[in-house]
Amino acid sequence: MGWDVVIVGAGLSGLAAARAIAAEGRSVVVVEARDRVGGRTEGGTLSDGQWIELGGQWIGPTQDRMYELVAELGLSTVPTYNDGDIVFGLGRRTGRLAGRKGAVPRINPVALADLAQGVTRFGRLARRTDLDAPWTTPGAHRLDEQTLATWIRRNLRTPQGRAYFELFTEAVFACETADLSLLHALFYTRSGTDLDTLMAVDRGAQQDRVEGGSVLVSQRMAEGLDVRLGQPVGAISQDGSGVSVVTRNGTRFDGARVVVTLPPTLAGRLRYSPALPAQRDQLTQKLPQGSVIKAHVVYESPFWRDEGLNGQVGSDTGPFKVVFDNSPPGYDRGILSGFLEGAAARSWSGRSPAERQAAIVECLVRYFGPRAASPVEYVERDWTAEEFTRGCYGAHFAPGVWTGFGPALREPVGRVHWAGTECSPVWNGYMEGAVLSGEATAREVLGVL
Amino acid sequence: MGWDVVIVGAGLSGLAAARAIAAEGRSVVVVEARDRVGGRTEGGTLSDGQWIELGGQWIGPTQDRMYELVAELGLSTVPTYNDGDIVFGLGRRTGRLAGRKGAVPRINPVALADLAQGVTRFGRLARRTDLDAPWTTPGAHRLDEQTLATWIRRNLRTPQGRAYFELFTEAVFACETADLSLLHALFYTRSGTDLDTLMAVDRGAQQDRVEGGSVLVSQRMAEGLDVRLGQPVGAISQDGSGVSVVTRNGTRFDGARVVVTLPPTLAGRLRYSPALPAQRDQLTQKLPQGSVIKAHVVYESPFWRDEGLNGQVGSDTGPFKVVFDNSPPGYDRGILSGFLEGAAARSWSGRSPAERQAAIVECLVRYFGPRAASPVEYVERDWTAEEFTRGCYGAHFAPGVWTGFGPALREPVGRVHWAGTECSPVWNGYMEGAVLSGEATAREVLGVL
Repeated sequence: MGWDVVIVGAGLSGLAAARAIAAEGRSVVVVEARDRVGGRTEGGTLSDGQWIELGGQWIGPTQDRMYELVAELGLSTVPTYNDGDIVFGLGRRTGRLAGRKGAVPRINPVALADLAQGVTRFGRLARRTDLDAPWTTPGAHRLDEQTLATWIRRNLRTPQGRAYFELFTEAVFACETADLSLLHALFYTRSGTDLDTLMAVDRGAQQDRVEGGSVLVSQRMAEGLDVRLGQPVGAISQDGSGVSVVTRNGTRFDGARVVVTLPPTLAGRLRYSPALPAQRDQLTQKLPQGSVIKAHVVYESPFWRDEGLNGQVGSDTGPFKVVFDNSPPGYDRGILSGFLEGAAARSWSGRSPAERQAAIVECLVRYFGPRAASPVEYVERDWTAEEFTRGCYGAHFAPGVWTGFGPALREPVGRVHWAGTECSPVWNGYMEGAVLSGEATAREVLGVL
Repeated sequence: MGWDVVIVGAGLSGLAAARAIAAEGRSVVVVEARDRVGGRTEGGTLSDGQWIELGGQWIGPTQDRMYELVAELGLSTVPTYNDGDIVFGLGRRTGRLAGRKGAVPRINPVALADLAQGVTRFGRLARRTDLDAPWTTPGAHRLDEQTLATWIRRNLRTPQGRAYFELFTEAVFACETADLSLLHALFYTRSGTDLDTLMAVDRGAQQDRVEGGSVLVSQRMAEGLDVRLGQPVGAISQDGSGVSVVTRNGTRFDGARVVVTLPPTLAGRLRYSPALPAQRDQLTQKLPQGSVIKAHVVYESPFWRDEGLNGQVGSDTGPFKVVFDNSPPGYDRGILSGFLEGAAARSWSGRSPAERQAAIVECLVRYFGPRAASPVEYVERDWTAEEFTRGCYGAHFAPGVWTGFGPALREPVGRVHWAGTECSPVWNGYMEGAVLSGEATAREVLGVL
């Protein structure tokens, strides 16, 4: 009766865990709230049938497991379009939008020196963090008792230098510098190698995409697995003999062990019997998801390329601050995809799609000129409004959380095990981290079955 | 069919709201998860039948509504025992436990001057906060982007001065200085008048108790109300015509409006249909409860009184750092009641009651001498482990939360209204705030019925 392992969530982490467990001949069922697999990766199509990606989409060097998996599953990657100059502007505080073109931010030499020194200092601190147990990092309490905002105020002197770090925070964490513990910002940066890697296309976290969309990874993994869609889990009970996972509509899945792969804040909303220990429950009270709305703006052609631009934007004047040329190779139209992140997502989430579209197109006109005024299609996904995710890219740790509650993040509670990209020491918050965490927890569970 | 208003939670806030709504001739039902009323106030008895309080117990000057309510309900107050000297010691960092007696901390003059200046500066900032909308306080972003820990490092120079603010934070917020936004610490302090008022017995927040226990306020309010106990709410749905509140076991309560009075983190765990707006959902992802375990240690007599001590302790050497003489007038035994708070609660929550008792008694021996080694009874309540509270005294705001999400705290979502001590501009986090918030939300609901 029942399965060896019940997995909650058919995102990358849950499916990777299930696959690893099934590969050892153990029975496993994956219970998923949505009517699709993929979690924070999601496929979509434009009106002309072109595939697009509504969620996580990039992989890059050192994300070895993802490249391996893509190959294993018979998929391939395509490079992110990266020929030409980036549109880069910092200087909200000065009211000035610096140089429209140029791979290096065209900001004044004083600001550039300030920024370079800040990046160096940040990198030096990041390299010292302990990825497996950030709370054991030398000086952890001191690093964890301050926000990234506080560190920026102390270590960067120019508005442009500060603006760069703020843009980095929004682009990478989808939250504001006030929301983050410095220790977490350092941990997360080292987890994904370094600041440059997180921000870059070539040799960076935005280098490649999966041909056809990253959701194919989940879809291919799901083939041959027992995945139950449209079954939002509501409760998990355990006793000496096993676990029972019960969906909101009362369907029950019994197993020897359960792996919960939801974002921590959603994992904390399930009803556990017996109730979870205080340390674990209070941890999930303190792990909010980031705030991000992803939007695709489609044009008749990728006209920016004619002007020597690569379609990428980094700007602090937003609200659409980070943009990429997302047109797949061979597609004759042009797609600019970007994000409302952090405060921008929070204030724009309550508005209508039409209002968001207007604001976003206004930004694109500012970045790319009047030809950007006439898109042929607009598609968006507000991840903060998604009931079964409630924010992307991942969870972030406020001050005091790593040092106060860190060990509860991955420690199993009896027969309940935890996985998800938030649990990964390496590439935390990314697809790579999700897969690594799922596979690590699968090994943990296989070890005790 | 149904009620005008369904109230979720029979704590002080829910009952005060229900009473105010019923007083206007509207029908109201209160749905409560536990088999008792009172929420974070709870009665208990010692083995000899003496009443004790397992949760919130004190009221003090300017908590006018609570004094009024106590009188209205035919109850009375008794003063907290306060004759004699306090045991006060700061100096964890220096390894020194300063003077055992004395109303004024016996710390060196330099530290005292440092502390006095810190308290003055903090008070000056606190008086500027806007209680109704803290995010509109002048300089709100600057105040909200740093932790209280950061402010302490900048504004206090001596270990003793810093230790005092850390003790204040644990005693008042049941969390650590790293967990708190400076803006929130200032808001909360002004909400309860000032730092001295929050810390004091005479003319302070710990001045009086309700004879028989504060839970009597809830019990008396519940008389004549339709309160359904043992009904944990699981889901709330609403449409143009009304709301449906459904318990975990499927019992349904229909109404025109619903008032949710749970701690924000638990309010966020209910299933809402349609799903809550992103702003509200992300807010409740970011409002953790404090960490506190309350313990009563009973002795044959209040022996400390013979030595001129009032039974109160403020010490940074803990883990039992804050203690009061909680023996009710006329009781011949002596009760010392105190708290494991913040980091102490987090690390001790996973241990056994016997281990906690041993650690607590060891502290009391340190504070009161060898006679404290032989209690006759020990009773505790770990509020972080309580499934239907998940931490006390209240919720705290990390950096960025007030300025990023403040308006979502009290703004109704359609027919769903919010109440609870966390929603109160005045005496936020206290019993007074709970009642004021319940009554304010009752007026809000009555205005739209």
